[in-house]
Amino acid sequence: MYQSKLFTKTRKEAPKDEVSKNAQLLIKAGFINKEMAGVYSFLPLGLRVLNKVNNVIRDEMNKLGGQEVFLTSLQEKANWEKTDRWSDEKVDIWFKTKLKNDTELGLAFTHEEALTALMKNHIRSYKDLPAYPYQIQTKFRNETRAKSGIMRCREFPMKDMYSFSKDTAEHEAFYEKSKAAYQNIFNRMGLGDKTYITFASGGTFSKYSHEFQTVSSAGEDLIYICDKCKIAVNKEIIQEQNKCPACSGENLREEKAVEVGNIFNLGTKFSDALDLTYLDEKGVPQKVIMGSYGIGPGRLMGTVVETLSDDNGLVWPVEISPFRVHLVQVGDKDDVKKAAENLYEELCKASIEVLFDDRDLRPGEKFADSDLLGLPLRIIVSEKTLMSSEYEVKERKTGKVSMVKEVDICDFVKKYK
Amino acid sequence: MYQSKLFTKTRKEAPKDEVSKNAQLLIKAGFINKEMAGVYSFLPLGLRVLNKVNNVIRDEMNKLGGQEVFLTSLQEKANWEKTDRWSDEKVDIWFKTKLKNDTELGLAFTHEEALTALMKNHIRSYKDLPAYPYQIQTKFRNETRAKSGIMRCREFPMKDMYSFSKDTAEHEAFYEKSKAAYQNIFNRMGLGDKTYITFASGGTFSKYSHEFQTVSSAGEDLIYICDKCKIAVNKEIIQEQNKCPACSGENLREEKAVEVGNIFNLGTKFSDALDLTYLDEKGVPQKVIMGSYGIGPGRLMGTVVETLSDDNGLVWPVEISPFRVHLVQVGDKDDVKKAAENLYEELCKASIEVLFDDRDLRPGEKFADSDLLGLPLRIIVSEKTLMSSEYEVKERKTGKVSMVKEVDICDFVKKYK
Repeated sequence: MYQSKLFTKTRKEAPKDEVSKNAQLLIKAGFINKEMAGVYSFLPLGLRVLNKVNNVIRDEMNKLGGQEVFLTSLQEKANWEKTDRWSDEKVDIWFKTKLKNDTELGLAFTHEEALTALMKNHIRSYKDLPAYPYQIQTKFRNETRAKSGIMRCREFPMKDMYSFSKDTAEHEAFYEKSKAAYQNIFNRMGLGDKTYITFASGGTFSKYSHEFQTVSSAGEDLIYICDKCKIAVNKEIIQEQNKCPACSGENLREEKAVEVGNIFNLGTKFSDALDLTYLDEKGVPQKVIMGSYGIGPGRLMGTVVETLSDDNGLVWPVEISPFRVHLVQVGDKDDVKKAAENLYEELCKASIEVLFDDRDLRPGEKFADSDLLGLPLRIIVSEKTLMSSEYEVKERKTGKVSMVKEVDICDFVKKYK
Repeated sequence: MYQSKLFTKTRKEAPKDEVSKNAQLLIKAGFINKEMAGVYSFLPLGLRVLNKVNNVIRDEMNKLGGQEVFLTSLQEKANWEKTDRWSDEKVDIWFKTKLKNDTELGLAFTHEEALTALMKNHIRSYKDLPAYPYQIQTKFRNETRAKSGIMRCREFPMKDMYSFSKDTAEHEAFYEKSKAAYQNIFNRMGLGDKTYITFASGGTFSKYSHEFQTVSSAGEDLIYICDKCKIAVNKEIIQEQNKCPACSGENLREEKAVEVGNIFNLGTKFSDALDLTYLDEKGVPQKVIMGSYGIGPGRLMGTVVETLSDDNGLVWPVEISPFRVHLVQVGDKDDVKKAAENLYEELCKASIEVLFDDRDLRPGEKFADSDLLGLPLRIIVSEKTLMSSEYEVKERKTGKVSMVKEVDICDFVKKYK
């Protein structure tokens, strides 16, 4: 893409009404727009990142056997009354609205009720199980405070998968597989090292549920890490047992962390309330065992910004960067323009995603913008590089500069991880 | 995809609470789920169609120079008061809700106000124009009646593009280009022949705006077609002038039609109200000229069902079909199973999207389901086809059967349009 055509502009100063680093940087770089506290629009570069995060998640969910759906935000109260989650006293984050005939509606903050009701149309017999529907869809939560940028929003994208299993053995096997899929997702985002599977309280049906917590000074949670087992417990658990659930060691390290995902055994809570049953091999009705598996793609994107960016701006991992390469033309002489244009076409032909800074600006401004946008590789085309028949390639993450021969450039860029 | 794994099931009977053909067929085939009147969830097959419709639209918008964004549903009143569209007396389709501190919020039914405000951060000079942001995003409209299935919803996806131009000449050139892009979209959906560019009243800034109307007995609009010019006028225009705006002929044919898209010259209505200006070459502030360009992907999908389906079920055009091929295994002997499995793998390797009916059901049930789902090509693998070393390929649209040699099957399928 030609940067001269990109309609968003960077800002010199971070917005004064934001306290979180992720919102400051993403607004400064033109990735998002603040509509009100906790409500952000995604602009072209930001949407490209979000879509890539979504596609990584999709890929891992599909490998688990997930089937993608898209449920609605508008909810009638009937199903939510059955689980006692309709009243504002019971759930204090509802946004409610009304039809013209005064029927009260809610904006979904989660989808267990809606999906359980829906699955009653599709689950009859043991042959219809297991089933793993998931969606990436907008959730609404009426948060009292929203100061963490895109990490805690009133309107935000969420991936929620739900498992429907015949029995606890089938449920538990899937639950274990989902942990590995989640870890793959965080690895692919560049957050693997900092993300701990964290034991949390399990509710009625299990001793534990599990959170995925990424260590970050911007986190709103406290976790307690066992470095020996590379796992953690959350605040609730530490208060109950003050030891590692795996090795029973008591040497736990406290850290601030962001909850980037969670998985939960729902047991028969929803299938009881909404009467979701199947007929087993003998024709006897049985309750379906359910689980829920959540990840916030926007929060994940915010966490990447909080943990990987530096003083000069954003730093995107290759897999979720809006473009792989920032091609920066330095100087406006005809031969430089032509060489930059040729390289742009060559990279595009090789199916490499390139943002081409063809703007008529001073080199210093271009480099500052390039650092701020944070694409993994910057290639400079200038009078100097023309003379050497090599390109100067700078890695955003480390600042390391390589001189790459013209003939090798596509290969170099494609292999970069 | 293995059909035995697909969690949705078809129904024998259409739902009794639906009067529209599109909702009846799509629910019967397991493509959508009704949450309440005018509110539908998309299930795996339905979401695949919707995503393909979205991608066709995206492709044409990107070719026009569009840049994709994603704005929020939650809206504060300030910008809407400036255009006098906040009060329920002025706009009677708002869904409103509230923050905990009682601040009233609206759920966006369109995005002119939000986007114009947003663009003030990015448009300063004539160099920043033109700009063509667009999104595919959920709209909320508090409709009094909602009986047309996914063609008139209270919550629905909409593609809305907005143009920001320096002057009327730049605006008009883009407006004309957008007509061709829209026509491409309808052609690619299989609706080209039935869709007429329809003159509608233009508001303050133009004599006409333009609707794209697809002739269908399910339509809620009446249009008046000039067969000579292959254009139409809507009810408002016919009452004013009773003739074709192109040839002035008065021989106009009335038809029921569905409005599948519309384009509108907004002039300076929003840039006046929200003070969106740019500095021209001389440094003089000028108002930005705007246009809006809408398409409802869900309505488009519903219109395809209304106009192309037949008594046996859905009929999808190749470009938006959930899969290109329905591979149906008939009989459960080992050699048939193995041959069907092998063909499935061969087609997948050739990057052909296949739904593989590997279920243990009677052939009659499988064929009925296959007709209902409506994939463009059905390939049967049976004892009979094994003996002939040819596959029986049936075109869903026409019922035409071809015998295709094993070695030619991938080629045949790929070339099919």
